[in-house]
Amino acid sequence: MKIAVIHGSTRLNGNTEYLTYQAIPKEKGTHIFLRDYNIEPIVDERHSEEGFPEVNDDHEKLIDLMLEHDVLVFSTPIYWYGMSGPLKTYIDRWSQIMRDPDYTHFRGELGKKKAYLIAVGGDHPKVKGLPLVQQFNYICQFYGMRFEDYVIGEARKPGEIRNDEAALKAAAQLIKELH
Amino acid sequence: MKIAVIHGSTRLNGNTEYLTYQAIPKEKGTHIFLRDYNIEPIVDERHSEEGFPEVNDDHEKLIDLMLEHDVLVFSTPIYWYGMSGPLKTYIDRWSQIMRDPDYTHFRGELGKKKAYLIAVGGDHPKVKGLPLVQQFNYICQFYGMRFEDYVIGEARKPGEIRNDEAALKAAAQLIKELH
Amino acid sequence: MKIAVIHGSTRLNGNTEYLTYQAIPKEKGTHIFLRDYNIEPIVDERHSEEGFPEVNDDHEKLIDLMLEHDVLVFSTPIYWYGMSGPLKTYIDRWSQIMRDPDYTHFRGELGKKKAYLIAVGGDHPKVKGLPLVQQFNYICQFYGMRFEDYVIGEARKPGEIRNDEAALKAAAQLIKELH
Amino acid sequence: MKIAVIHGSTRLNGNTEYLTYQAIPKEKGTHIFLRDYNIEPIVDERHSEEGFPEVNDDHEKLIDLMLEHDVLVFSTPIYWYGMSGPLKTYIDRWSQIMRDPDYTHFRGELGKKKAYLIAVGGDHPKVKGLPLVQQFNYICQFYGMRFEDYVIGEARKPGEIRNDEAALKAAAQLIKELH
Repeated sequence: MKIAVIHGSTRLNGNTEYLTYQAIPKEKGTHIFLRDYNIEPIVDERHSEEGFPEVNDDHEKLIDLMLEHDVLVFSTPIYWYGMSGPLKTYIDRWSQIMRDPDYTHFRGELGKKKAYLIAVGGDHPKVKGLPLVQQFNYICQFYGMRFEDYVIGEARKPGEIRNDEAALKAAAQLIKELH
Repeated sequence: MKIAVIHGSTRLNGNTEYLTYQAIPKEKGTHIFLRDYNIEPIVDERHSEEGFPEVNDDHEKLIDLMLEHDVLVFSTPIYWYGMSGPLKTYIDRWSQIMRDPDYTHFRGELGKKKAYLIAVGGDHPKVKGLPLVQQFNYICQFYGMRFEDYVIGEARKPGEIRNDEAALKAAAQLIKELH
Repeated sequence: MKIAVIHGSTRLNGNTEYLTYQAIPKEKGTHIFLRDYNIEPIVDERHSEEGFPEVNDDHEKLIDLMLEHDVLVFSTPIYWYGMSGPLKTYIDRWSQIMRDPDYTHFRGELGKKKAYLIAVGGDHPKVKGLPLVQQFNYICQFYGMRFEDYVIGEARKPGEIRNDEAALKAAAQLIKELH
Repeated sequence: MKIAVIHGSTRLNGNTEYLTYQAIPKEKGTHIFLRDYNIEPIVDERHSEEGFPEVNDDHEKLIDLMLEHDVLVFSTPIYWYGMSGPLKTYIDRWSQIMRDPDYTHFRGELGKKKAYLIAVGGDHPKVKGLPLVQQFNYICQFYGMRFEDYVIGEARKPGEIRNDEAALKAAAQLIKELH
């Protein structure tokens, strides 16, 4: 059972990262920081004759890495009541992957995986983060991925997540596969 | 009364664009297509000593343009049950603008504006697009912007939006300032 | 094709009723006003040895009537950001019906039907009514009922719904089976 | 600091009750079981000339009792993806209370209180219970009540809540005023 953690945070050592490590310690998962890679925004060519052009970036490499794992943990700060732009850009490009002849297995493979969401926000995230949870649930449903669980933490300034004891405890118990 | 339309679509002449023009004909608003500009993803430096570094892209120019208008229409295809990556990236960077000494008026200015949302999706968007509406509502609340109304269209393939008569009619009546 | 309208309103000739008649004129459907019947709240005895006791009220009669129709329209004023108590009480009792040996066909029969929702509220219902839409969607999903569409109207005082032109127009086109 | 717990469950010793006692032990709060009282459904007479008629039931008594407390915990099984009918009926009648000349202080008094929500459901409640959380948040907002926190438990058959360790732990830490 292999766990991949997709980090959407844009800040080093941020609150979201801290909470995520409570759930999946460094050595227990493959931690992928999207900020360390170049991922181009999608250009929707689903319906053009030529289809999607090849994009020269790191997206495919990350998709390959992700697919090697059984459990996917998506970790994101809540930016403007949604997932971070980098995580959204990463997921948007799945539309291209799904039409890539080399990835006809993509949807089916995701359907075998389990997913978790870890999100941290500063403005009433346990209520205002719920649309993100609902969106994430729809994404999982699309692929037939099992949305196992989620945790929402509250923090604004660096380090503040340490005060959200409930989130820390919940994170520490979040990943069923580690317990 | 000046209307700006922020288009998050990545495809030329797509369904979302079509629906949006039903609401705001070309000559009735300033149509800004984010895909025509270079907008870098945010790097959250809110809490670093140096603050945000200057970014050499088109974001500030678009912010200036947006602020000249009284009514803001956000138009986006629904990608993975949320706004498009380019639109999210554009909005994420508002966090940087808010900390820019040249834009201390940003939040206050947005608070005087009215906002509309136009979204088009292919997978039950009138239900699965609701988290996007809820997220958008929270964004408006943050700034004190009045979230006037929204319309959700259903379309998958190019041109299909023409079959969603209810959305077309609703769009044609959407913008109170035009009626 | 037969249409039943389940009215959850507690007021005669209210805004919700008015909007509902725009969608389904009196003579086009069987209009059932829950307020005219006696429906007892559920007492959850799903897990007691004796099971549910017989309840001497009108619930079964209304279930029988509802099941004779192909399209179900649920019409409710938005009370406290949800469906009205009488409508909730009516639906809560479905848990009892599902365990009634005389109604083993209940879930399957509902699964063949199409459902619509009409809701009217006074406090930003197009946003604050969305949890009700989402709840209703889950109810439909449970039964495999197809949730066709919904309309949300805004009105507070008697007659005010006549000012919500968008809702009136949307209602007039709502029921696909009538067009 | 006095805590009132409003129980919407219709079953004695059910899962919701069990989880609620983890949060507020019997002796730490005033536990009010709506099922033990007679509460009539609302008949909306907000706009009739005579206003609301007097209703001969236990509602006012429960309102008085509730108002004596500083913290309100609403505890409900999730019935059909919403609060239980009895709890909805109880809250619906607040519309009547607000127009009662003897309760002009009602809205203001609620605005001084803090609120919590405890909900238990059997069908993916951590996702499908979110509309209930959002609805509850709007109710709190209306009154200016501070919505402190919530916990959602998963259980179907009697006693099953004991397996939801995450919910039990979260409940045990839920009420800030007890820690």
